[in-house]
Amino acid sequence: MARTPTYSTPEGRATRERLIDAAKRAFAARGFRGTAIDVVAAEAGVTRQGLLHHFPSKVHLLVAVLEQRDLEDKALAEEVAATDVGFEGMMLAVLDHSVQRESLARLFTILSAESIDADHPAHAHFLDRYRQARAGFTEWIASAQAAGEIVDTIAPDQLAAVMIAVLDGLQMQQHLDDEPLAIEQTLAALLRTLRPA
Amino acid sequence: MARTPTYSTPEGRATRERLIDAAKRAFAARGFRGTAIDVVAAEAGVTRQGLLHHFPSKVHLLVAVLEQRDLEDKALAEEVAATDVGFEGMMLAVLDHSVQRESLARLFTILSAESIDADHPAHAHFLDRYRQARAGFTEWIASAQAAGEIVDTIAPDQLAAVMIAVLDGLQMQQHLDDEPLAIEQTLAALLRTLRPA
Repeated sequence: MARTPTYSTPEGRATRERLIDAAKRAFAARGFRGTAIDVVAAEAGVTRQGLLHHFPSKVHLLVAVLEQRDLEDKALAEEVAATDVGFEGMMLAVLDHSVQRESLARLFTILSAESIDADHPAHAHFLDRYRQARAGFTEWIASAQAAGEIVDTIAPDQLAAVMIAVLDGLQMQQHLDDEPLAIEQTLAALLRTLRPA
Repeated sequence: MARTPTYSTPEGRATRERLIDAAKRAFAARGFRGTAIDVVAAEAGVTRQGLLHHFPSKVHLLVAVLEQRDLEDKALAEEVAATDVGFEGMMLAVLDHSVQRESLARLFTILSAESIDADHPAHAHFLDRYRQARAGFTEWIASAQAAGEIVDTIAPDQLAAVMIAVLDGLQMQQHLDDEPLAIEQTLAALLRTLRPA
């Protein structure tokens, strides 16, 4: 599905980046399915033909957006793994990373919800992504339980699903609301509650 | 925005119900913005003009879907309030109610995510809905803490936001996945972990 053409000119690369940025904004506002490629082309200041030269279909634009996010996420995972902040520090860093990139986080709230439909072109991507996230969190949590950092009254895979749900759900509530909900403090309070007595 | 016409014939009421059902299926699959009213009309076996007679716009269909859900939710809240199952029982009943109506729950996962955009016609509805849910959960949790049912190491309003996030997020993970994730057991394990030592 992916196509990453090589560009011989800086202009070509710049146009491609502009199209991806325009797609992100359009998808974040109206979802993948609610977005017309003509709108993306106009936003990026190129013709429909110009867009199709870089991205033969709307799905190719979606793939480019998902690939960019994957690269960012890998960088975050490496950054977090290289530090020694414990389980609570890791969870707070993951939320903070997302809060700092609010427009991207909003984009992924809508794309992941759209993709629960099995026919959505990002369905397999998000299914895989959530399974990997649960597996990664399960490992972190098992280690943190073994180290006595968090209670062991809940199985690591169950707490992994809960923590991912909390991260997604608190951000969803904040995206919807125009008042600040202090979701970082809420997560910190939950993490303190999960410390062994 | 709402318009609930009175119908003098059973046929009129039946057509209206068929259109609402078709809209629910279409919105669940493609979101509100990804749905064309012609598709809803065809699904319900009426012409575009027939649809527009009952619902002058796609937003009117959306309002009818949201109103139906509000009525169902009120019935659930009364049912739960009339029982004496404690905080854990209430949380499990809320999740069970939603799991039993999976297609409706999927529909509301996509509609709520779409509506984080302030220009979405359901934005105010979902903002209000989440604020009311947090207020209601905060009251339940404060009572449960006062009764010694759950730990008081986290403020009621913070745990309210967490519990709503958990309910939303676990269902989101299950909607996306074709394998059963045992989210009821996961919620039960979290609730046990929140019992005072």
